[in-house]
This record gives sequence, C-alpha cells and structure tokens, in this order.
Amino acid sequence: MGVVLFTGINVNGYPCKNAVNVTEVDFFIGGLANSAVINNLVGSVITTANNVEKIPGLNTLGVSLARIDYQPDGLNPPHTHPRASEIIFVLDGELDVGFITTANKLISKSIKKGDIFVFPEGLNNGVKPASVIAGFNSQFPGTQSIATTLFTSTPLVPEHVLTKGFQIGTKGVKKMRNKLAPKKT
Amino acid sequence: MGVVLFTGINVNGYPCKNAVNVTEVDFFIGGLANSAVINNLVGSVITTANNVEKIPGLNTLGVSLARIDYQPDGLNPPHTHPRASEIIFVLDGELDVGFITTANKLISKSIKKGDIFVFPEGLNNGVKPASVIAGFNSQFPGTQSIATTLFTSTPLVPEHVLTKGFQIGTKGVKKMRNKLAPKKT
Amino acid sequence: MGVVLFTGINVNGYPCKNAVNVTEVDFFIGGLANSAVINNLVGSVITTANNVEKIPGLNTLGVSLARIDYQPDGLNPPHTHPRASEIIFVLDGELDVGFITTANKLISKSIKKGDIFVFPEGLNNGVKPASVIAGFNSQFPGTQSIATTLFTSTPLVPEHVLTKGFQIGTKGVKKMRNKLAPKKT
Amino acid sequence: MGVVLFTGINVNGYPCKNAVNVTEVDFFIGGLANSAVINNLVGSVITTANNVEKIPGLNTLGVSLARIDYQPDGLNPPHTHPRASEIIFVLDGELDVGFITTANKLISKSIKKGDIFVFPEGLNNGVKPASVIAGFNSQFPGTQSIATTLFTSTPLVPEHVLTKGFQIGTKGVKKMRNKLAPKKT
Amino acid sequence: MGVVLFTGINVNGYPCKNAVNVTEVDFFIGGLANSAVINNLVGSVITTANNVEKIPGLNTLGVSLARIDYQPDGLNPPHTHPRASEIIFVLDGELDVGFITTANKLISKSIKKGDIFVFPEGLNNGVKPASVIAGFNSQFPGTQSIATTLFTSTPLVPEHVLTKGFQIGTKGVKKMRNKLAPKKT
Amino acid sequence: MGVVLFTGINVNGYPCKNAVNVTEVDFFIGGLANSAVINNLVGSVITTANNVEKIPGLNTLGVSLARIDYQPDGLNPPHTHPRASEIIFVLDGELDVGFITTANKLISKSIKKGDIFVFPEGLNNGVKPASVIAGFNSQFPGTQSIATTLFTSTPLVPEHVLTKGFQIGTKGVKKMRNKLAPKKT
Repeated sequence: MGVVLFTGINVNGYPCKNAVNVTEVDFFIGGLANSAVINNLVGSVITTANNVEKIPGLNTLGVSLARIDYQPDGLNPPHTHPRASEIIFVLDGELDVGFITTANKLISKSIKKGDIFVFPEGLNNGVKPASVIAGFNSQFPGTQSIATTLFTSTPLVPEHVLTKGFQIGTKGVKKMRNKLAPKKT
Repeated sequence: MGVVLFTGINVNGYPCKNAVNVTEVDFFIGGLANSAVINNLVGSVITTANNVEKIPGLNTLGVSLARIDYQPDGLNPPHTHPRASEIIFVLDGELDVGFITTANKLISKSIKKGDIFVFPEGLNNGVKPASVIAGFNSQFPGTQSIATTLFTSTPLVPEHVLTKGFQIGTKGVKKMRNKLAPKKT
Repeated sequence: MGVVLFTGINVNGYPCKNAVNVTEVDFFIGGLANSAVINNLVGSVITTANNVEKIPGLNTLGVSLARIDYQPDGLNPPHTHPRASEIIFVLDGELDVGFITTANKLISKSIKKGDIFVFPEGLNNGVKPASVIAGFNSQFPGTQSIATTLFTSTPLVPEHVLTKGFQIGTKGVKKMRNKLAPKKT
Repeated sequence: MGVVLFTGINVNGYPCKNAVNVTEVDFFIGGLANSAVINNLVGSVITTANNVEKIPGLNTLGVSLARIDYQPDGLNPPHTHPRASEIIFVLDGELDVGFITTANKLISKSIKKGDIFVFPEGLNNGVKPASVIAGFNSQFPGTQSIATTLFTSTPLVPEHVLTKGFQIGTKGVKKMRNKLAPKKT
Repeated sequence: MGVVLFTGINVNGYPCKNAVNVTEVDFFIGGLANSAVINNLVGSVITTANNVEKIPGLNTLGVSLARIDYQPDGLNPPHTHPRASEIIFVLDGELDVGFITTANKLISKSIKKGDIFVFPEGLNNGVKPASVIAGFNSQFPGTQSIATTLFTSTPLVPEHVLTKGFQIGTKGVKKMRNKLAPKKT
Repeated sequence: MGVVLFTGINVNGYPCKNAVNVTEVDFFIGGLANSAVINNLVGSVITTANNVEKIPGLNTLGVSLARIDYQPDGLNPPHTHPRASEIIFVLDGELDVGFITTANKLISKSIKKGDIFVFPEGLNNGVKPASVIAGFNSQFPGTQSIATTLFTSTPLVPEHVLTKGFQIGTKGVKKMRNKLAPKKT
C-alpha cells in the first residue's frame, strides 16, 4: 500500500493533492485526548471527525480511527458500518460488548482497559465513564444507528413497515419516534 | 471474470472441483417458478437456496439471485445484506420499496411488474400477491433481518441495550420478543 | 456495502450526487415488463438500459440486471462480459444454455421457467418465446458479441487475422461480414 | 504488497508453504531464452509455463509473465484472458497488434523490438520471426482462443449456435471444426 | 462487511469456525493496558499479538490494531507494512512522527496524547515514555523493519549489495550487522 | 477485465477518453529496444516511462512493464513498490536476484537470459551488461529506493532516526547522505 498523492485530480471522489503541495496537516487531526461531552439519550458519543473528510491524506488508504466515549450506563446503540469492519481498543473503564452473527448468535463479552474486541456494539454497565478507540478498514466507514435510522428518517418510514417489522402497535411507533427524534437545540 | 474451476482445492473456503469433473449441475438450480408458501408474521418469503452453498459453480463469481414473494400486505422487513449490494426486478404485482441512506434520508417508490429498483426493503401495499428477483454482487450475500436479529438472538441481547437503544419499556421488549420469536412447529 | 452518495464529486468516473439531492428516480428504471421487439438475425434482444448509465444510484454498487428476450429458435450468441460474472433466472419458456470453461469443456443444460443458471450463452430451441433476467456483479458489465466484434468492427480486423484465426477463406470472411453487419434502417 | 508465505495452509486454492520451507526455486522458472518450436496452424506459440501452477511463489501476488513467439506470417489468434489485463514488450521482430473495444472500435498498430502495447492480439506481417513478453495482473490469467474454444470444445457447441452466431452454413462449421481441431500426434 | 463464519473450511488460509462453534474468545484479546517492557536498541516495542493469528475472528475482516510503546528517546525505526495502510492514535506522551512519499518528500509532525496521524514512523524525542494505538486495514499487516531486514536476514544479503546500495564500506556493514543482530538471550 | 474507455470523466484520478476519441497511441510507447545510458553510483537504470502517466490506456488496467539495465557490477538497490507485485524476465546477461520475506529470510538466485524471477532486487555480478523486463500488477507501481529515500529526502529525516535506526554514527550518516545525494548536473 502506498500514499496515492501524485495525481493532479480526484481519487475516489476526493481531491488528491499533488505531492509537491502535500503537508503534514493533510495526515493529522488532534484534540481527541479527552472524553467528548455526552448529552443524549443513549449516553455515548462517537467522535467521527477523523475520516477522509477531515484527513485528506486518508484518501484511498482504506483505514480510519474513531473515539467513542460512554458515560456510566451509556450505550453505543445497535448500528452498522456499511463500508467497514471494526475493531476496538479500550482506553478506560469497562464495557459489555458484542455483536450478532448472520446465524443470529449473540457474541458478547465484558472487556476493560487494554482489551481488544472485534465488531462491537458497546454497553457501559459500570459506574465509571469508559472510552474506546475504534479502527476501521475504510477511510469513510459510515454509520447507521438502527433505531434512529428506522424511526426518524426524512421522510418517515411508512408506519406499517415498522408496526409489521417490529410487531408493535402504532402508539408504540409514535412513542419511539418522539423519543428517538433528534433534540432541537 | 472467469470461472475458477481448475484448482484442485478450496477457494474462498468452498471446494473447487477440477475442471474435468465439473458438470452443468454445478451451475444450476431449479424450482423457483412459483411463489413459495408464505406462513409467517411479515407475509413475505425469501428463497435463499441459490447461493454458493447450493450452486458450487458460483464460488468466486461474486454474484447470486434470490426470489422474494409477498402476500397482499406482505412485508420484506428492514434488513441488511452484510456482504452485497442488491437490485430487484418485479416479476408480478406492485410494491412500495425503499431504503435509508447514511444521511438518514428515506428513498422510496411504488414499483410494479417489470420495474427495477436498487437496495430495496419491500412492502406489498396492494391486494394481489407480488414477487421479485433480487440480484446480489456476492455468491453469499447473507441477510440480517434487523428486528429478529436484535430481539430473538441466542443468547438474547441484554434487555437494557434494547430499552435504551429503542427507547421502549421492558414490557415492550418482552412483547416484541414474543411476537418476533420463530414459531415452533 | 453502502450507497456512496455523500461525496460532492465523481466516483468511478460517474457523477455522485450529494445525498441531499438524491431522489428515488436515481435508483429506478421501469418498463421491462414485456418482451422487447426482436428484429435481428440472431432472434434475441438484450435490454441493456439498466446499468449505471441509466440508473445513477448503481454507481459503485457493483451490481446490475438485464432482461433478455428470445423468439422461438432465437439465440443470444457467444459473447463475453469483460467486467462481470453473470447469472440468469428464466422468466418464461425454455432455453438451452451453456458456456465453455478455460479447459475448453462445454457446460450446458436445458432450463425452463423458474430455473437459474450461471454464465450462460442462451439458445431457445423451443417453439415459444422465452425471456430471462440476468444478474451481473458490475454496474457496467459491458458486452462483446464475439462474431460481430471480430467481423464488423470499425475499422475492420485485417482479413488475414480472420482467415488464419478461423481457418476460413477470404470469401467466407466477406460473407460473414455482410451478414453480420448491422442493418441500415 | 507482500509475499503471503507464512500461513500453513491454502491461499486461493493453492498450497502456501511455511516461510521456513520456502526456497528460491518457488519463485523461479527458467528456459525461456529461445523461441519455442512453432508447429501449428496459426504460427504462434504461447509459453504458459510461468503462472502460479509452475511458480508457487506467485500465489496471491496477482502478476505473471508469458513469452509468445511468432513465425513469419504467424498469428496469435483472437483470444481473451478471463482473469487479467495484458501488456506486451517486443523482444524481436515486428508485429501488427490490436484489440477491439466494447464500443466495437479496432485499436491497432505496427510495433517493433522495444515497443510496448496494451491488450494486444498479435499478427506477424513481417518476414522474420518475432517474439514478445506479455505481462498480466494475475498469477493465473487463463486464455480462451475464441475460434478453438467455440469450434472444438468437448462436447461440441451445438451446430445451430455457430451457424446462427457466425451466420455460416453447416458445411462451413464442419470445415472450421476439422481445421481448428487439435492435431493428433 | 460481515463476519464470514459459516463456512466449514479455510478462508484466506486460516481455519474458519462454524458459526455454531464460535465464541466471544475468537474475537477478543486482552492485556494491552500497560506499556510492554522495552529492552532493545531502538527503544520501542510493538505488541503484535492482535492479528488474525491470535484473534481468529479477524479472518477476512481486513482490520487489526497494535500497541506501540516508546521509552524516552525511543524510536520505531523505519519500516514498511507490506499488506496494510496504518493510522495511529497517541495514548500517552509526545512523538515526532512522519513518513516519506514516493516523491521523496518527508512528511513529519510532533504529535501528543489524543492526536491522530497517518502512516507514521515514530520517534519519541521527549523525556517521558509514549505509547500509541495503530490501526491497520489488514488482519495480517506484516512488518519489515528496514535496517534489520537488510542487515540481519538469513542468509545475509551479499555485502556488495549493501556497500553499493548504502554507499558504505565493508567495515561499516560489519559494524551495523553486529549492532543490529538480534541479541542472544 | 475490460478497457474502461467509455466514461467521459476521470477514473482513478486519470482522465478517461471517450471511446470515440481513443487511438492506438493511447496504448503504445516505444523506444525501449536498447539499454538506457547508465550514469549513477549504483550502475543500473529503470526506464519508468511506461506507466499510466505515459500510456493513458493503462488506466484502471492494473498492469505495467518496466525495463531495467545493469552495467557490469551494477545494482538495482534495495527498494519497494508500494502498490504492486513484481516479476522479471531476463533479456540479456546474468544477475543475482533476491528478496527478503517478512520472516526475514533471504530468497536469492543467480539467473540468466530467459529466466523469470519474482519480487527481485537485482545485482549484476557478471562482467557483461544485463537487462530485464519487469511486470507489475499496477498501472502505477511506484518505487521507493530505500537508501536514497531515507538518506536524501526533503526535508532530511532527523539524523537521530538514522543513527538509531541503522546503528551508525553521525559521521556515517553524513557520509552516506553526501554519496547518495542526487548528482547536480
């Protein structure tokens, strides 16, 4: 693998600087030393600044990192990364992590600082904050949080799809939509 | 692209016949002419017989087809194919189809016999049965139905993940689990 | 796999809309319900409208579908798809299908409505029309019909290449060129 | 790119030696210094010894070379490499080379010792022998000579496919089959 | 992307468990919470335990993480990862990091706890220890430390290659070989 | 594999001609019949003219060739191709070639005219000039000569990285830098 810098034009839809104009800033992003402020229902925050949109040098490299912080009892809710595999390293605290295979088997474990786990949906069951570093094999992994995607898209998914798909009543759908809707600020 | 037949051993974890021993049967599967019997909550059935597990000749070709049948008011519930893109052709009837982008925008449309749509989650809002052929760019696309995956895995996803992730009560989770659980027969 | 919509620029040489501007029309094409009009020597027609050139949403998804119609005795002549594997589903009628491996072995079979076959060159030996849906693992599979490619290219392939390559006389080449040349209309 | 040696088992269906047991012989093949003996109708010979079947070290490297020799008036007949792109370097003599795009345009040129051309079907129109080195981006490019593939496969392609596909009579097909059939020795 | 668990046989040369037998242990490795013991010339240690050889669940996922610890004045010497791109997150301390483009331009920067940098060769110029987490887009990135590779391989690289390649004398080669040779213990 | 000509825009960052405007010149480069002039310390020259920058038709084909000439005692010094595997064919003379595996094992061999070897760093130990053709599985393999990369980049690699990494003194670094620096002309 090499840094594809030398072309004058776009690669993968992102501008590719001429090698002569590239600087260290194209390969750098800072400020992830401390936990992000967590102010939402699920109690976790993903700092997604460090993909190819913010680090031009990642273009074509097929790799990126993210920091995820959990408050006590915080959850990184069920989600998918449509364009990447994921692996995490625990920076601090303890987490219950896991995922479900296509054979519908739950694979889960409690992990702590210094542990590594593959493909996790995290849950902080502890009383202290926790944080992890996630590695992806994509410069633009993308994330789809399942609940907010299905219940708060624009326009809304037809109610019938949700009542039938999740076997809940229309009231249940309305309640979930209200709670999951992004807070106005 | 070519048929990788000539190696004597495994490719992608599947046995690869010697070209001398390959026959037409390795590239064929029949019996998808008629609608499958539909006997479930969501009112649709995916005939997933025709991937590399059933058509050895598909190995390494990165392509497969599936038939999906919908009874009136039937739904192919929200799902993901972890290893493939999808495109459908409507064999019969009418469907409302759509998907949600990573920008959380719902892309949907009503389509009928002879129409083609990309990446669909289907809903038959009509009064007649409907059926489609789905094309995948994988010989083993895999499918994860979101609701059954999250609410009926073995072992079960911790209740707390679901109450927090979907913003519902523990009673709601229990109800959904009961309804979504595979029927014993 | 995910829909790569969010970049403002080109991906794979095709324009990539901003997610905000994407609509369902970008993922749809209609009008393949009925057999196309067949008016040529070989008696079959491929409806190739549904690749990335006509369905912008297919860009980067690596998948597409085509409809192929055969009149009785119609042939989808020997051809290659330089950028894709192929798999078909029979919509109607019966076909003899097959392909030749790089070990020069012919793999062929008679298939009927509801059957699936991999990598086919089709021949309708029946007395009724037939039609199939072909799935490709490319948004732009491309097609090269061997005979028309070699005998009717512009400029023409040197006669010597064809007489030597196919072991026919110059008269034979001329005859084939006349018959295979696209009809003026 | 790196040499994937260290696994104890199969990669891409070919055995992968343990690094400890690998020797230089796994990466070497000799004896291509002189023109191969040419004793066939078309007057050219491809020395295909040097793919992954003969050079185990090529496994997973996705590259290989071949030597092609032409007698005066010799032809490397129309063919495809189902799993590779091709580029040639002329060792000796002069050739007319070319290929046909999917837009059915013939791209051709006369080239001589020291010239490089992409995707060629070669024809030696000169009075001296010629030879080239071909590079492929596959450790197992595969080759299908169109005429011999279509007219001499086992079993034979149905006559009807050839008469209709090439617009020739049944006598023509018989003649071509006889001439193109591999010589018994 | 999905977890390819369900095949009964090898994928990419590594055994692939049946989904029924997979457990959380296949996706986990622990014990990277603290700095590894550093006892070598360059003053840094890469904990390479967490690739597919130690985490079977990583197979086919194309991602992995490593921890690298630096003592004050420690160096992660010039190296390449033949099968991966790399990105780091600084756990503790400060580092000078950089790499050289194929245009022979040095891209370097001083980074500290919480910073991210792409493709780094690290140097701890500070007085405190430092450590980073490196993400790779391969489950088996491989590492070649340039100096030890060229000066301490078995058998040795011909002296002439090194004297000419690095423009040093034979005494210089001997000295470097002695110092770079792995310490017997 | 096919020639991706037909798009009107950029592919992989390189302009892609419309098929209508493509000519044979886009697939051709000449003038590699004779040895290049060798006038440098190491005694070898790589003619790198024939990648996608000089042969537009190579774009997306993932293949290229290079000619390397060695004077007696000439060396193609240790280097890497960050984006390609390599295989060579010896045009003339004799060479000692080899490479080092990630298991730090030297794989080397003496080869002569007509021999093929994988992944070589070449050394001409003979008394006659030698030349090879190298095939790459990339249209833009890139080359990094290790010594010149590390000792002559702009700006210079910190002296400390080299003294520590190669275990030499600061005088040694200065000497190597002077000798390896590109000659002004």
